[in-house]
Amino acid sequence: MAKVTSREWRLAARPVGEPSPSDFALSSVEIGDPAEGEVQVRNLWMTVDPYMRGRMNDVKSYSPPFQLGEAMTGGAVGEVTASRDAGYQVGDLVSSMAGWREAFTAAPRAVAMMKLPSLKLPPQAFLGVAGMPGLTAYAGLLRIGEPKAGETVFVSGAGGAVGSLVAQIAKIKGCYVVGSAGGQEKCDWLRSLGVDAAIDYKAVGGGPALTAALREAAPKGVDVYFDNVGGDHLTAAIDCANIHARMPICGMISLYNNTRPSPGPHNMPMIIGKRLKLQGLLVSDHADMQPAFVKDMSEWIATGRIRYEETVAEGIESAPQAFLSLFSGGNTGKMLVRLA
Amino acid sequence: MAKVTSREWRLAARPVGEPSPSDFALSSVEIGDPAEGEVQVRNLWMTVDPYMRGRMNDVKSYSPPFQLGEAMTGGAVGEVTASRDAGYQVGDLVSSMAGWREAFTAAPRAVAMMKLPSLKLPPQAFLGVAGMPGLTAYAGLLRIGEPKAGETVFVSGAGGAVGSLVAQIAKIKGCYVVGSAGGQEKCDWLRSLGVDAAIDYKAVGGGPALTAALREAAPKGVDVYFDNVGGDHLTAAIDCANIHARMPICGMISLYNNTRPSPGPHNMPMIIGKRLKLQGLLVSDHADMQPAFVKDMSEWIATGRIRYEETVAEGIESAPQAFLSLFSGGNTGKMLVRLA
Repeated sequence: MAKVTSREWRLAARPVGEPSPSDFALSSVEIGDPAEGEVQVRNLWMTVDPYMRGRMNDVKSYSPPFQLGEAMTGGAVGEVTASRDAGYQVGDLVSSMAGWREAFTAAPRAVAMMKLPSLKLPPQAFLGVAGMPGLTAYAGLLRIGEPKAGETVFVSGAGGAVGSLVAQIAKIKGCYVVGSAGGQEKCDWLRSLGVDAAIDYKAVGGGPALTAALREAAPKGVDVYFDNVGGDHLTAAIDCANIHARMPICGMISLYNNTRPSPGPHNMPMIIGKRLKLQGLLVSDHADMQPAFVKDMSEWIATGRIRYEETVAEGIESAPQAFLSLFSGGNTGKMLVRLA
Repeated sequence: MAKVTSREWRLAARPVGEPSPSDFALSSVEIGDPAEGEVQVRNLWMTVDPYMRGRMNDVKSYSPPFQLGEAMTGGAVGEVTASRDAGYQVGDLVSSMAGWREAFTAAPRAVAMMKLPSLKLPPQAFLGVAGMPGLTAYAGLLRIGEPKAGETVFVSGAGGAVGSLVAQIAKIKGCYVVGSAGGQEKCDWLRSLGVDAAIDYKAVGGGPALTAALREAAPKGVDVYFDNVGGDHLTAAIDCANIHARMPICGMISLYNNTRPSPGPHNMPMIIGKRLKLQGLLVSDHADMQPAFVKDMSEWIATGRIRYEETVAEGIESAPQAFLSLFSGGNTGKMLVRLA
C-alpha cells in the first residue's frame, strides 16, 4: 500500500482563559499500514464541541485531559481505506474518537470505532443530530427534564447543536418552548423551527434584564430548563422556575474560558422553596437510550419534524478556529470541520 | 367558662438582615369560648424553626408571609380545654399551626389541628424527632439522598433538629457519616451519636479550609450531601462530591439574614462532569411517607438507635430570643419554647 500522510492537531500549550491559535500546532505524520486487528481510516468529518475546552486544562474530569504535544481526540467519521480486522471492510463508513486528524491506523476498540448505521442520513449527521449531541438532547430533555405537554421548556444555547434539538423535541412533546440564542438571525431560525419565543441574549444583556426577558417570554413560568450556558441564564431560569421545575445541566459554556472561578447564581435558596431539581448530564450515562433515540430521531427527521443546521469549516487547517468560534456563537446548529 | 387570656407574638416590623427583638411585639388577647365546631386549646410547647425567617419577609414563597401587626404562626402542641367539635375532647393532646401564643380558640381545620398519636413519647417530641423536622430528615435523606450502605453521607447543621436525625438515620442505613456543626461541644455530641467524623466549622473557617477539612473527613468522597446551611458548605460538598452524588437541599441558614443576594458556589460547572443532583426539599411534598416514618422512628427511638436532644427556652416571653439563637447555633437538637 502507498504511504499515507495525515495532518493532526496537537495541543501546543494549555490555554489560560480563551484559547488562542498558538495553543495548537499542526503536524504531519505518516500513517502505517494496519497490523493484524487494525484498521486504517481516512476521516471525512470531525467535530468540535464545547466540552473539549475542559480537556485542554490539566484537570482530572470525566474525559482525561489532552496531553501536551500529543494529537487531540474527538468525534470523527471516515471511510475505511485498509483493514486487517474481519469486522471492517474497505469502504465502510465508521465513527471514532480519532478526530483532529485526517487519517489514522488503529485497533477499532482503541478509538471507539463503530460502523455507521444505514439510515438515510449523510455521514456527518452522526456527529450531530444522529450522534452524541442528538442523544444528549434526547436523553437530557426526556429523562431528566421529563417535560409534559403544556409545560414551558426553556433552553439556552438554543442555536447550537444540542439546544436546537432540545427545542424541537420539546415542541414534539407538546410543550411551550422558549429558546435563548445570540443574535437576530439565530432567533429567526428558532422561530422558523416552531419555537414559541426566542430571546436574543446579546441584545437583552445579562443580569436582571435577562430574567425580565424570560419572564415576558415564559408568562406561565419555566417547568424545564435545559442549561447549556450557565451563569446569568441559570440565574434567570431559577428566578422564573415554577414549583418542581427540572433542570438538566448539560453545559455552562459562558464560564469555560473564565480564568477565575465565577460566582454561582445568587438565588440558590429558591431551590428549596420551589423544590427545583438541578441534575448534571453527560451523554455517556444514557447509552441505554440509544436504540429509542435512533428510532425516534430517524422518524422525526424523515417526517420533517426535526430539522438541523450545520456550520461547516473547510479543511483540517480550520479546526482550531472552528473550535474557538463556538465560544462566540459562530455556529448555527452543529459546528463541523470537513476533512475530505 | 372562665375567660382565658393568652399572650401572643406579633410581627411588629419586617426585619432587615438579622432580626432584632424590636421586630416582635407581645400582646395579650382574650380567647373566646368555642362556638359550634370550634376547639379551645392551651399550648404546652411551641417550636421555632429557621424557615420562619423567610415568612418575616414580604415575599411570596411556599409559606405565606406573616402579616405586620398580626400574630405569627408555627407548630405547637397543646391540650384541649374546651370543645364543641365532636372529634375533640377536653384533655386531648393536639398539634396545630397556632404557635407563637399561649392559647387559642379555632376550628380545627383552620389551624391544621391533629390529635397526637399515642406513642410513648412526650408531647414536644411531635414538634421535633416525631414531627416535621423528623419527617424532613427521613424523607429528604431516604427519598432524595437514596443512601446506600457503605456510601459517605455529609450533613451540615448536624447539631440541629433535622441534621442530627439525618446523621443518625444515615448510620442506621450503614453509611459513613460526616457531620458539620459549630463548636467542640456539638461535635463531641455528634461523635457520641456514632457519627464517624465531625467538623467544627467555626474552628475550621470557610472557603478552601472547609473543603480541605471535608476532604480529610470524607476520604472516599461524598455520595450524599444533606444541605441545611448553603454557602461555603455547599461549595465544599460539590468540591468533594463523587460521581452521581445526590444533594437534598433542605435549608441555607447561613444566607437567610443576608441583606444582599449572596453569590452561589463558584464550582457549579462540577455539577455537569460529576452528574450531581441537587434537589430542593420541603416536607409538605412527602406527607405520603408519614406512616413509614412513624413506624420506623418509633422503633428506632424505642431501641435507642435514634437519640435526640432538646434545647428549651422557658415561657412565651423567650420565644423571639429562642428564634434568634437558631442563627448563631444556640441550639443543640430541637429548639423549643415551653409555654406551660
